[in-house]
Amino acid sequence: MGPQPAVADVRRVVRESLADVPEGRLVLAACSGGADSLALAAALGFVARRAGLRAGLLTVDHGLQPGSAERAARVAAMADRLDLELAEVLTVQVGTAGGPEAAARDARYEALAGAADRLQAATVLLGHTRDDQAETVLLGLARGSGLRSISGMAARSGRYRRPFLELSRATTVAACRALGLTPWDDPHNEDPRYTRVRVRARILPVLEAELGPGVAEALARTAAMAREDADALDGWAAKAYDDCALSDIGGSVTLAVEGLGGLPAAVRRRVLRRAALAAGAPSGALSATHVLALDRLITHWRGQKAVDLPGGLSAVRRYGTLILATRPIP
Amino acid sequence: MGPQPAVADVRRVVRESLADVPEGRLVLAACSGGADSLALAAALGFVARRAGLRAGLLTVDHGLQPGSAERAARVAAMADRLDLELAEVLTVQVGTAGGPEAAARDARYEALAGAADRLQAATVLLGHTRDDQAETVLLGLARGSGLRSISGMAARSGRYRRPFLELSRATTVAACRALGLTPWDDPHNEDPRYTRVRVRARILPVLEAELGPGVAEALARTAAMAREDADALDGWAAKAYDDCALSDIGGSVTLAVEGLGGLPAAVRRRVLRRAALAAGAPSGALSATHVLALDRLITHWRGQKAVDLPGGLSAVRRYGTLILATRPIP
Repeated sequence: MGPQPAVADVRRVVRESLADVPEGRLVLAACSGGADSLALAAALGFVARRAGLRAGLLTVDHGLQPGSAERAARVAAMADRLDLELAEVLTVQVGTAGGPEAAARDARYEALAGAADRLQAATVLLGHTRDDQAETVLLGLARGSGLRSISGMAARSGRYRRPFLELSRATTVAACRALGLTPWDDPHNEDPRYTRVRVRARILPVLEAELGPGVAEALARTAAMAREDADALDGWAAKAYDDCALSDIGGSVTLAVEGLGGLPAAVRRRVLRRAALAAGAPSGALSATHVLALDRLITHWRGQKAVDLPGGLSAVRRYGTLILATRPIP
Repeated sequence: MGPQPAVADVRRVVRESLADVPEGRLVLAACSGGADSLALAAALGFVARRAGLRAGLLTVDHGLQPGSAERAARVAAMADRLDLELAEVLTVQVGTAGGPEAAARDARYEALAGAADRLQAATVLLGHTRDDQAETVLLGLARGSGLRSISGMAARSGRYRRPFLELSRATTVAACRALGLTPWDDPHNEDPRYTRVRVRARILPVLEAELGPGVAEALARTAAMAREDADALDGWAAKAYDDCALSDIGGSVTLAVEGLGGLPAAVRRRVLRRAALAAGAPSGALSATHVLALDRLITHWRGQKAVDLPGGLSAVRRYGTLILATRPIP
């Protein structure tokens, strides 16, 4: 008799995700002790031993809740039972930049990256599921900032891999239950002060009730397609930028207007965004509205004055070129 | 003193939308008598007279509710007051194909197109607002079928123009109130059997409450960007298809595998979809899963057997080509 279907599922996707990791290399699972990452660590222990890989877990103590150190120690203490040869507690200081969720995430990823480097890990597995992906897409939609913002999380990104992106959260819960593992329920996951918690607890259930089940799956599918679409368009824009950038010295970029005019709007705006970033505009401050104003210098030229951009930059059109440089452009 | 801001808004967007219509031509507004299309007809009457255009309204009697003929007659009777030189009631028979919403829409558009041809109208204006657009995006998202499905409605599409896509429904209601016009509230707009009604009444309010106001605007912005992105990718795929289609005779298409391999995934899948449609696959039945199976013949070739496609088609890979033709391919 094989394993319970949920257990088979979590093992299968971890095995597929690690198919290209050379034998003998170390793979780490980031594990909070929640159902997703506990199922992940368990699947990694099982798969790694059979695939000739070394395996371990990293758990982060954010120091934000009473007893967080004890909990992290308890997660680390499970390593043996999960067939993992090493477990580390990473203690971090969470700052405040960008809000509590962003600050905790930044601190966590910095600690994970540091440990992965020190331990020479081939990759770090993250337990994000299809439900997390659906939440990410909805958060991106609410920002309304285009294809990248609805692309969700990548199955692979640098040192990280997310083998569970195609599985539901329910599958990871079922896998833990079948394996006799008791996940920890992070009280932050219930705190409605977090936007993501509200998306999970109040928005997705309404979407499922009114539009039918399968909404999370549809959102995750949208994310996967949006990511490929965004990659293709970014590739096109990179090439087009190289074709029409006459000069690109730190702080100043000059583009040939003629080359821009023949591009589809979606590509032209990506080239303009790229030029603004290359000239030094801070990416967080550069909005679609700025790019649209730049675009009007190309498509609706009537001798407009300079367009102001974040980071103290300006853009002017002159003699068939678009110049982006520090204000004022002489 | 100028007009009330909502009235100024509806007139401005109609004026901008009609800027390229030659003087003396006829412009029609499709008007159900609801707030959106009543504000549209009123704005058209005002703008057309000043722009030297002729203007009229079309109202459709779907015959689905008791009293629908009387109501249509009352809408038509408003033409004078709205400064419109003509008004026609179009009586249609609603079928059942594709469900009640789709059948009513098909009948309505057929009637509008017929009348526009007969009256030699330059364009037909439709009253869809930013809120309608947001609903359309959410419906598309729930389908999870990619960029086109979240592109919403186009500001211009063939004979139709939608000048209100950037305005909120609240603006059209305010404009009607300021102009002393009493809109008709279609009971269908409250009937929760319609998916769109549930999106409007139950989903968007939850999104606004949990994510903050501006969600409809963000969704509409996403739609506009998605449409441009989809246009650019479709253009690329059309060119790539021409480059790698070795033959394309009704019912059979042969593609060069070599040309496909170098394309980004997003473009390659669009080329494959295009090939399947050109070979005769019915577009409604051709899913992302079918296209993915085709794609594996290119990217994961291990001598697989033929891939079955809707419409009695098959695809096989042979000697560096991909052949899509009626089953069985000899």
